[in-house]
Amino acid sequence: MVTQRTDFPLHDLPLHYDDIAAAAEALAGRAVRTPLLESPALNERAGGRLLLKAEPLQVTGTFKFRGAYSHISRLDTATRKTGVIAYSSGNHAQGVAAAAHFCSAPALLLMPEDAPAVKKRGTARWGAEIVTFDRYGKTSREDLAAELAAARGLSMVRPYDDRLIMAGQGTVGLEIVQQLAERKLRPDRVLVPCGGGGLTAGVSTAVAHHYPDTDIHPVEPAGFDDTARSLASGSRQQAVPGAASFCDALLAPEPGELTFQVNSRLCAQGLAVSDDEVAVAMAAAFSELKLAVEPGGAVGLAAALAGKVALDGITVIVLSGGNVDPAAFAKIL
Amino acid sequence: MVTQRTDFPLHDLPLHYDDIAAAAEALAGRAVRTPLLESPALNERAGGRLLLKAEPLQVTGTFKFRGAYSHISRLDTATRKTGVIAYSSGNHAQGVAAAAHFCSAPALLLMPEDAPAVKKRGTARWGAEIVTFDRYGKTSREDLAAELAAARGLSMVRPYDDRLIMAGQGTVGLEIVQQLAERKLRPDRVLVPCGGGGLTAGVSTAVAHHYPDTDIHPVEPAGFDDTARSLASGSRQQAVPGAASFCDALLAPEPGELTFQVNSRLCAQGLAVSDDEVAVAMAAAFSELKLAVEPGGAVGLAAALAGKVALDGITVIVLSGGNVDPAAFAKIL
Repeated sequence: MVTQRTDFPLHDLPLHYDDIAAAAEALAGRAVRTPLLESPALNERAGGRLLLKAEPLQVTGTFKFRGAYSHISRLDTATRKTGVIAYSSGNHAQGVAAAAHFCSAPALLLMPEDAPAVKKRGTARWGAEIVTFDRYGKTSREDLAAELAAARGLSMVRPYDDRLIMAGQGTVGLEIVQQLAERKLRPDRVLVPCGGGGLTAGVSTAVAHHYPDTDIHPVEPAGFDDTARSLASGSRQQAVPGAASFCDALLAPEPGELTFQVNSRLCAQGLAVSDDEVAVAMAAAFSELKLAVEPGGAVGLAAALAGKVALDGITVIVLSGGNVDPAAFAKIL
Repeated sequence: MVTQRTDFPLHDLPLHYDDIAAAAEALAGRAVRTPLLESPALNERAGGRLLLKAEPLQVTGTFKFRGAYSHISRLDTATRKTGVIAYSSGNHAQGVAAAAHFCSAPALLLMPEDAPAVKKRGTARWGAEIVTFDRYGKTSREDLAAELAAARGLSMVRPYDDRLIMAGQGTVGLEIVQQLAERKLRPDRVLVPCGGGGLTAGVSTAVAHHYPDTDIHPVEPAGFDDTARSLASGSRQQAVPGAASFCDALLAPEPGELTFQVNSRLCAQGLAVSDDEVAVAMAAAFSELKLAVEPGGAVGLAAALAGKVALDGITVIVLSGGNVDPAAFAKIL
C-alpha cells in the first residue's frame, strides 16, 4: 500500500525504521490506533487542509504509553520482576506506570511536587509508587533517580534518549503514513510537539522512510525552543534561562543526545509558539474536534493557526496528549 | 468478516438493513468513520468492558450529519437546487446545513430562540439561513416549517421519521458491527441515546441483523422517557408534561411513528437517567477519554456508570454528540 524506500541513507542513526516496525508489533492490540481526524470547519478556519493525529485518545491520554510499553515489554523476565523507575513531569510517568502494569512489573515514578494533579492521579491509578521531588531543589531528578535505581536494583526507563522509547513513539508516525495511504494522500509537512525530541525522532524516522521530501517541523513553546535553535546552529543548545510556559509536558532543558542525532538529519526548521497561541489552539480543538488537548499537546495546531508555516497541500499535526486538569481547562475555555 | 442473517423477519418494517448499507455507500469519504474507543481506566471505574462510539468526532459534532447527508444526497437535482428546510433544536440543523452545503443545496433552518449558541453558530457557518421561533409560542415548529416549506417550495428534511434519515443514522450501528468484528468481539448490549428514535432505529436494525440476541437499550433523560414507557406499554406514550432536562438534544415529546415501529420490535427495555448522572458521565468522558460530550450525547455512558444495567461481557455505548457551549461545559467540569 505504501512505497518503501530501502535506500534511504539512515543506517548510521540511533533509530532505524525497522525498530519502529518492531515496536508496532509489540504494541498491536495494546495501544490504541488513534484516529487521524479532519474537520471541514477547522480547515476553513486554518485556510488549509489539516489532518490531526489524536493521541489524547491513547491509553493514559498521551503518546508516551507507546514508548514506555515498547521498552518495558522487551525487558527480560528477571528485570521486569525487580521493577522499573522513571522520572517525569507526568506523561512519561503515566505511560511507564500503565506499561509496567500490563507487563506485571513494579514501577517507581519520580515526579515533581508541582506536577498537575491529573497527572499524579493518572500515575497512581496504575498501582505505581510515586516519590515527589522539589523541581527547584539541589539534587537533579536524574541524580535522584540514579540513586534510587541503584539502591533498589531498578531498571531505568528514560523519557526519550533510548532506542526502544523512540521506536515506540515512532509508531505514531507509522500509523500516520498508513492512515494517509488509506486515503490516498501524501503529506506536505508534519508538525510535531517537541520536548526532549523522542516523539519527533520517531515520527520523522517513520515519515522520512516513506516520504523523504516531507517537511517535519518540531514545535516548541517560546523560550523552550532549544531544538529549533539547535537545528539552526547545528549543535545542541539550551532552553532560555528563566523561561516559563504552561506547556508543562515540553519543558526539557535541551535536546536529547540520541534524539538530536536523528532530528538534526531529518527535521526541517523548528517553530515556536506563545502560551496565548496555544490557548487559542486548545479552544479550537475543543470547539471543532470535541477533544481535550493539553497545552503541550496543542503546540502543533497553535503553529498552524498562528500562521507560523505555510499550509498549502496536506498538513499533518500531531496532537500529542490530553492530560489537562479540568479546572485549568475550564479557565482556558 | 461478519456473518449476515438474511432470514431475519424484518421485511415489514419501514427500515431495512439494505437501506443502511446503501447509506453507508453514500456517506463513504464524506462522513467520519468515528473510532470505537476503549479506556482501561474507564472500564475499571465502570466495572465492565465498555466500547464507546465517538460521534462527537463526526462532521458537525454529532451523528445527525449521517442522516441528513443520506437524505439530501439522494434528492433529485431540481429539488436540491430549490433547497431544503428543517426544524431542530440544533444538531439536526447543523447536520442538514452541512449536508446541504456539500450537496450545493440552499438550506433554511428553523431553530428555537433559546438553542445553545454553539449550535446556532455551527449551523450558520455552513451558509444556511436561520429562522428562530419561540419554543413556548402558539404555533408548533412543525406547522411553522410546513408553512415556510409551502411558501418557498422547499423540501422538508424530517429529524427522524424518514427512511433515509434512519438509514443514515444506522451507519453508526453498521460501523460498530464492523469495528467489533475487526477485534473479534460480539456485543452483549448496546446503549443508544434516544430522542425521537431515529438513531435507535438505525443502530438496532444494523446490530440486530448481525446479532439478533444483543440487547439494544434506548437511553433517555428522566421525564423524557417516552420511548421507555412506550416500549413497556406497547403503544406510543408522551413525555411527562412540564419535565425539564439539560439534555437539549433529547427533548422530543413522543417517539416517532416510523421509528417506534422499528424500535418496538427490536429494542430491549428503555433506561432513564437524571441530569446529575449525565454530568458525572460528561466529566468521566473528559477525564478518561479526553472527549467533549454534550449532555444528550452522554446519557448512555451515564446509564452504565450509574448501574442502570448489568455490564457483564461487552457493552457498546454510543456517545452521540459533542456540541456543548464551552462555558456550560466548564461549569459542569
